[in-house]
Amino acid sequence: MLGAILTANSLELNVDLSITSLFYQLPNLLLALSDSGGEEKATIAALVGTAGIIFLFSVILGEICVRLKLPTVLGDLVAGMLLGGSVLGFIVFSSEGIEVNSALLSGLEFVTGASSAVVEQAYRFQMKDFLDASANIGLLALLFTTGLESDLKELIRVGTQATTVAITGVAVPFVLGTVVLIQFFGVATIPALFAGAALTATSIGITAKVLQDIGRLNSEEGQIILGAAILDDILGIIVLAVVLSLIQTGEIEITNIIYLLTSASLFVLGAVFLTKVFGSVFVSLINNIKNPAALMLLAIIFLNSCALLATAIGLEAILGAFAAGLVLGETEFQEKLQSLFEPFIFVYTTIFFVTIGAKVDLSVLNPTIAANQKGLIIAACLIVIAILGKIIAGFAVFTDKPINRLAIGTGMIPRGEVGLVFAGLGATTGALSNSLDAAIIIMVIVTTLIAPIMLRFVFPSSETEDSEEAVDRDCVPVSKFN
Amino acid sequence: MLGAILTANSLELNVDLSITSLFYQLPNLLLALSDSGGEEKATIAALVGTAGIIFLFSVILGEICVRLKLPTVLGDLVAGMLLGGSVLGFIVFSSEGIEVNSALLSGLEFVTGASSAVVEQAYRFQMKDFLDASANIGLLALLFTTGLESDLKELIRVGTQATTVAITGVAVPFVLGTVVLIQFFGVATIPALFAGAALTATSIGITAKVLQDIGRLNSEEGQIILGAAILDDILGIIVLAVVLSLIQTGEIEITNIIYLLTSASLFVLGAVFLTKVFGSVFVSLINNIKNPAALMLLAIIFLNSCALLATAIGLEAILGAFAAGLVLGETEFQEKLQSLFEPFIFVYTTIFFVTIGAKVDLSVLNPTIAANQKGLIIAACLIVIAILGKIIAGFAVFTDKPINRLAIGTGMIPRGEVGLVFAGLGATTGALSNSLDAAIIIMVIVTTLIAPIMLRFVFPSSETEDSEEAVDRDCVPVSKFN
Repeated sequence: MLGAILTANSLELNVDLSITSLFYQLPNLLLALSDSGGEEKATIAALVGTAGIIFLFSVILGEICVRLKLPTVLGDLVAGMLLGGSVLGFIVFSSEGIEVNSALLSGLEFVTGASSAVVEQAYRFQMKDFLDASANIGLLALLFTTGLESDLKELIRVGTQATTVAITGVAVPFVLGTVVLIQFFGVATIPALFAGAALTATSIGITAKVLQDIGRLNSEEGQIILGAAILDDILGIIVLAVVLSLIQTGEIEITNIIYLLTSASLFVLGAVFLTKVFGSVFVSLINNIKNPAALMLLAIIFLNSCALLATAIGLEAILGAFAAGLVLGETEFQEKLQSLFEPFIFVYTTIFFVTIGAKVDLSVLNPTIAANQKGLIIAACLIVIAILGKIIAGFAVFTDKPINRLAIGTGMIPRGEVGLVFAGLGATTGALSNSLDAAIIIMVIVTTLIAPIMLRFVFPSSETEDSEEAVDRDCVPVSKFN
Repeated sequence: MLGAILTANSLELNVDLSITSLFYQLPNLLLALSDSGGEEKATIAALVGTAGIIFLFSVILGEICVRLKLPTVLGDLVAGMLLGGSVLGFIVFSSEGIEVNSALLSGLEFVTGASSAVVEQAYRFQMKDFLDASANIGLLALLFTTGLESDLKELIRVGTQATTVAITGVAVPFVLGTVVLIQFFGVATIPALFAGAALTATSIGITAKVLQDIGRLNSEEGQIILGAAILDDILGIIVLAVVLSLIQTGEIEITNIIYLLTSASLFVLGAVFLTKVFGSVFVSLINNIKNPAALMLLAIIFLNSCALLATAIGLEAILGAFAAGLVLGETEFQEKLQSLFEPFIFVYTTIFFVTIGAKVDLSVLNPTIAANQKGLIIAACLIVIAILGKIIAGFAVFTDKPINRLAIGTGMIPRGEVGLVFAGLGATTGALSNSLDAAIIIMVIVTTLIAPIMLRFVFPSSETEDSEEAVDRDCVPVSKFN
């Protein structure tokens, strides 16, 4: 870090003496001094430069979204698309085929004075590994705070309805998508099944963030959406196990499915149990600790332990983060933890969503490419199925109470990062033709961008309106929930 | 991230159809599914596992420090030493010679089910690149909040005294160290000069954190220490330039020195000027922006721009971070920014100090190794010089007012990360003999650990005492500054 403070201070006092003896060690010393300094500087410059540009785009586009009364997550996604390989090329995840932005590289060279090779290496590291790790932190923090804000009892209460929504929302788009692709577009079975599977995903990240943004996470609809999105995640893992055992052995290993179903159920029950036991342990531990940093650090330790536990039993790390949030959300530290994690949400979920945007290959929208022409027609169909399938799922909710079924379905629409994983796999494995892969990417783009906009209209914000007025314009607060 | 949600859901519906066609794509698909999942899982597990262990040690040792009324930074440094390659081997920075902790690796293998090669790669990345980047974030955030809490006018007021302290604190240890090593230990000129230079450093990170911890950053002594530590940093860069030009051309390039002096002065003046201009621009910008994340993100953008600017004119990035903090500290958002950055301080400076601790090679303390025996004797001398030199610098302050000169000198004692850079360079370039390198590392360890303890006694905390009582024990607050 402080590589440049290599103060061999006052060497000038001994010029004559030193010069001769220095001669022998000169090449090594010089290399170490200049190179080590250059690399350090390049690393830090790439780090702060990259983050600065990401945040600048996020602030500008987020502000446009806020003024249009749209969730800021939309701004981050568009910011990512603009910064990504398809447009400006500032954030490039694929190492092949796409040029690293030369303007940024020469900027970094100018700033650090390091060689272009050193700068490019530092930049590539920031671009891929560090942004990926930061995006992971963002998603974990997002799921943790979602858990903090969620009410465990409410989540259990709406459990059956969430299950209905999740299963319908997986089955309808899958069957509809597969059948339409085979019947109307003459797609072979495997690619059709693959595309059908891509239609089932729900982006838990985008859903949770939009619900947080519009202050509706705690509504009955919000908790159903959340529960269904989480079940979607678990369902996905189970189906993956099915597919894998199908590919490996040609048959479905029932024991495997039973194991996963059991561990998922035990995990959820464990979270409920931990709430009672660990909650009070955590509270008394924190109350006896005097180190001001301890609350934050212990919460992260707990979050990480739950994430590891979830991973160990074959679930996703983010489910562990959500469970950790649920448990700590029942303690007296809920509010304090929310405010402690808020800056992380500001910084890291921004990076997460910008990263998702940057991973989208916008070139599939170019209609002059032959594969895209066919892709665009298929895409139109997939988009309709993707939206319709989830909206139907919303109407699968059975209750006598007045409930916004349209909002529930709309909340499940964004495919986001999960859909991109499918498209990426389709491309790298060759399981999908170019046009079908392009169609899936377009479907992911449209559902991801359109869902926050639609949700804004079918599910009005509960508090943004008046709190904005009060804070920003200093006028008298209008009545809530108007 | 959600690599495991590769839901080719309901493939079981088409078992017969799919098996034959799957056969052709099987190897690719299988590879992509299992490998990509494993790598993702391993990366996340290594990330949360590493962070969890670091924070666990930090909380335990930090709590011991708080109870012994010592700054928590000491706990983090010791936590790092325990976790480092010399003891437990959880955090290993050197890629050569030290084994990666096998218990942790098998734990990660067990949790993720990934192959040992995948786990080890993910672990190595977390260990080196990610921790290094996080440590950089920690130091930048620390300097930024130090700037936020500092008073620009006060800093300018004590400028002359800080300069005296900085110059004395560089000159005395350097001359004393070099002369003693040549005269009493028969060390050659170059290594002696190198060791003398290592004695001049001041760890601005540790100094700033301890002052924050004891609530004395804003005292006159605190601002003198801070100003002197920052000047020490700039002085270091200038002397480095002198050394480099001396090595390269055999003579001192006056223009280079003049350039650096000018740019450093311009940078400081620029910060003062920006305070007036940018401060109000920032305030009106924030007041007109409705995105709740904007304050945090704009502050980071400003921080990063200043860091890049500092790098571009040949200074350290952390000086830019400090200047950014100074500027924004004069605005009405000072308190809000402090609370927004607090969680980052909790998390990232912990990583920074633990990292410093982990980089220390404790094996130099082993007296059974021959080189260490000689090293320990030299170390004893260097430690005396290192402490004495800075304490003398503290007494160089000329003022009529009552001022704690001992506290100023003590605040400059820790060599920390800067000293380690020297020791590392000495080892890799071969400029230092094994025993002299060991002696420098021991000097760095002792000064780094002893300074926070000493400071606790010569510079009583301004608020910890009573606020602790009030918060933790529910008894009546005792009078402040007792």
